[in-house]
Amino acid sequence: MHPIIKSRFEQFSDGVFAIAITLLAIELKVPTLSTNEIGDAIREISSLLPMIVTFVLSFVTIAIFWVNHHQLTQMFDSIKHRRILWANILFLLFLTLIPFATHAISANPFHPFAMLTYSAVFFGASVSFSILRFFIHKDAGSPRVAMGRSMVGPLFYLLAVISSFYSVWICYFLLTIPALFYFLPRDHKLQ
Amino acid sequence: MHPIIKSRFEQFSDGVFAIAITLLAIELKVPTLSTNEIGDAIREISSLLPMIVTFVLSFVTIAIFWVNHHQLTQMFDSIKHRRILWANILFLLFLTLIPFATHAISANPFHPFAMLTYSAVFFGASVSFSILRFFIHKDAGSPRVAMGRSMVGPLFYLLAVISSFYSVWICYFLLTIPALFYFLPRDHKLQ
Amino acid sequence: MHPIIKSRFEQFSDGVFAIAITLLAIELKVPTLSTNEIGDAIREISSLLPMIVTFVLSFVTIAIFWVNHHQLTQMFDSIKHRRILWANILFLLFLTLIPFATHAISANPFHPFAMLTYSAVFFGASVSFSILRFFIHKDAGSPRVAMGRSMVGPLFYLLAVISSFYSVWICYFLLTIPALFYFLPRDHKLQ
Amino acid sequence: MHPIIKSRFEQFSDGVFAIAITLLAIELKVPTLSTNEIGDAIREISSLLPMIVTFVLSFVTIAIFWVNHHQLTQMFDSIKHRRILWANILFLLFLTLIPFATHAISANPFHPFAMLTYSAVFFGASVSFSILRFFIHKDAGSPRVAMGRSMVGPLFYLLAVISSFYSVWICYFLLTIPALFYFLPRDHKLQ
Repeated sequence: MHPIIKSRFEQFSDGVFAIAITLLAIELKVPTLSTNEIGDAIREISSLLPMIVTFVLSFVTIAIFWVNHHQLTQMFDSIKHRRILWANILFLLFLTLIPFATHAISANPFHPFAMLTYSAVFFGASVSFSILRFFIHKDAGSPRVAMGRSMVGPLFYLLAVISSFYSVWICYFLLTIPALFYFLPRDHKLQ
Repeated sequence: MHPIIKSRFEQFSDGVFAIAITLLAIELKVPTLSTNEIGDAIREISSLLPMIVTFVLSFVTIAIFWVNHHQLTQMFDSIKHRRILWANILFLLFLTLIPFATHAISANPFHPFAMLTYSAVFFGASVSFSILRFFIHKDAGSPRVAMGRSMVGPLFYLLAVISSFYSVWICYFLLTIPALFYFLPRDHKLQ
Repeated sequence: MHPIIKSRFEQFSDGVFAIAITLLAIELKVPTLSTNEIGDAIREISSLLPMIVTFVLSFVTIAIFWVNHHQLTQMFDSIKHRRILWANILFLLFLTLIPFATHAISANPFHPFAMLTYSAVFFGASVSFSILRFFIHKDAGSPRVAMGRSMVGPLFYLLAVISSFYSVWICYFLLTIPALFYFLPRDHKLQ
Repeated sequence: MHPIIKSRFEQFSDGVFAIAITLLAIELKVPTLSTNEIGDAIREISSLLPMIVTFVLSFVTIAIFWVNHHQLTQMFDSIKHRRILWANILFLLFLTLIPFATHAISANPFHPFAMLTYSAVFFGASVSFSILRFFIHKDAGSPRVAMGRSMVGPLFYLLAVISSFYSVWICYFLLTIPALFYFLPRDHKLQ
């Protein structure tokens, strides 16, 4: 097997990122507005609130994965091990499920099973991303760097999976923590 | 955090632009033609006119955003501040909502709330684009350049939001002004 | 206005081409097979034949446009005139309508108005592509080269538009001619 | 005809790959969960099992095609023969049909005709990929290399097509063999 050239690895990944993030909005249900009354329309729209919150959460989470993915790929020039390739493909599998899971919540707002599906997809994406990060750091000679940081996503998403049957609100709360954590800059090279 | 490399920033943005603009047409409702009579078919098709006008307006607006986005990214070689990255992601969030908002009008032609949604999405895209432009110009050492020009979009889209409950026609009229304004070349280097 | 860099022009166009061509198949109606009898299933499938023929015709036509678009962009290094940019955007508008028009035929097989829509979209794509080709050849100093060749698409698609109300079969026949014509190599540098 | 530049050939192909693989998940049917009972919800979800298995199989198969496609394109710098271009386009045609075929199984689980369609699409993709590989190897001066390896996909997919009317299980089993075969590394340059 020839080594995988980085540019095409990034190009394919960026394509999947771009499509997944754009499809989030396509999944939004367009309400058929039955009235011209502003009051009624506002009530109809506010029933869409869980959908809108979930859309924004999914969008921001995918964007953060993209920023982190981009930073990871800057650590190597060519892919030396097949396992990096397949860890990335496993991560992309979960990434493509995010629009599906977002749609599951729109179709079944506040349903524990929809929350479970949503949390489980984020958990899978997060774990596979940590595996990818581990392999890349190892090849770059720094296996232990950022491993603590890597645990935040899987941990909170696992708690979200568990909490999904007890409380939708705790579940949502737990799902936003990794987004906030990874959103904040790690250091001050770039503010 | 490592600096974000420009090529991947553009690649991801171009992906979202390309998908959003292509999905506009997918959202178009295919009429199930119930008759072979030309006269009736023309009547059925002409009921689709608001949808077609909105499709063209959305397409042209996204295309203009793309041209302007492209020109902005020529002003820097690498992204020095995180805020540019996140201003871009905020802009892309509104960009991905354009097919959704276009579809909302197709599903609810002439409904004030659909017009409000559509105008609000354009307003959000326009404001976040102006923020992005401001940050990039600031980093390039020219914070005040093109700021007057930057105000045209947000201003007219805000007026469109306000007008959406009074008149669909005024709203449409206001929505076309930024498209025309930014379509016209700023100078004569390129005609 | 800064000159448009070719790489991003191609990247955006290729994105639209790739999405439009992939969405063709998504538009295919999946039959809900009501029987396990092979004979009945074959009958159900054969009712899908117009859809399949149209899918292949659309796919091949987009592929040919892509090959020709690619060859065109090799004629310049940077875009010197805004009109090239906008001719390309007009062409992409019609390109994104091809999945929609293909779907219109699937939903209304053998309906003259669906054939008219389909032919009209191809006519629009073909005319805007010829305009794009004309501008690019003009900038390259060879305005008259390939102009005869450029007329084949618009001419046959115009005839297809006209014939759509008389005969679906003649219309289909006329639509395949440009595909065959442009498929055949112009010269023998590459076979 | 000018030679086709490799970068755009890859860019267009990668776009189609990325969209096809992302659309797989979009095709997944979101169940409208009618109950909050965990037991019932599990029963509803388990009825989705064939859909999930098919999704994973399609995802992995497309990923493997992508890895192999990437390795093939490393064998040349520019496309010297038109036939490579068209073999690739034929392959992409079948590739775009994979989400459609996956959806056909979701809509008609365990229906022999759905299995036949699915197997036939994989067979077509596999044969056209082998043709592409043959042309590229021939141009690189090694027509016979990897030809044995090339036969595994077409052979097992052909057997899957034949078996689809006898047993869904044998069909599924046959469809996974090429995935496993091509997943395993050919040599030890990269592990």
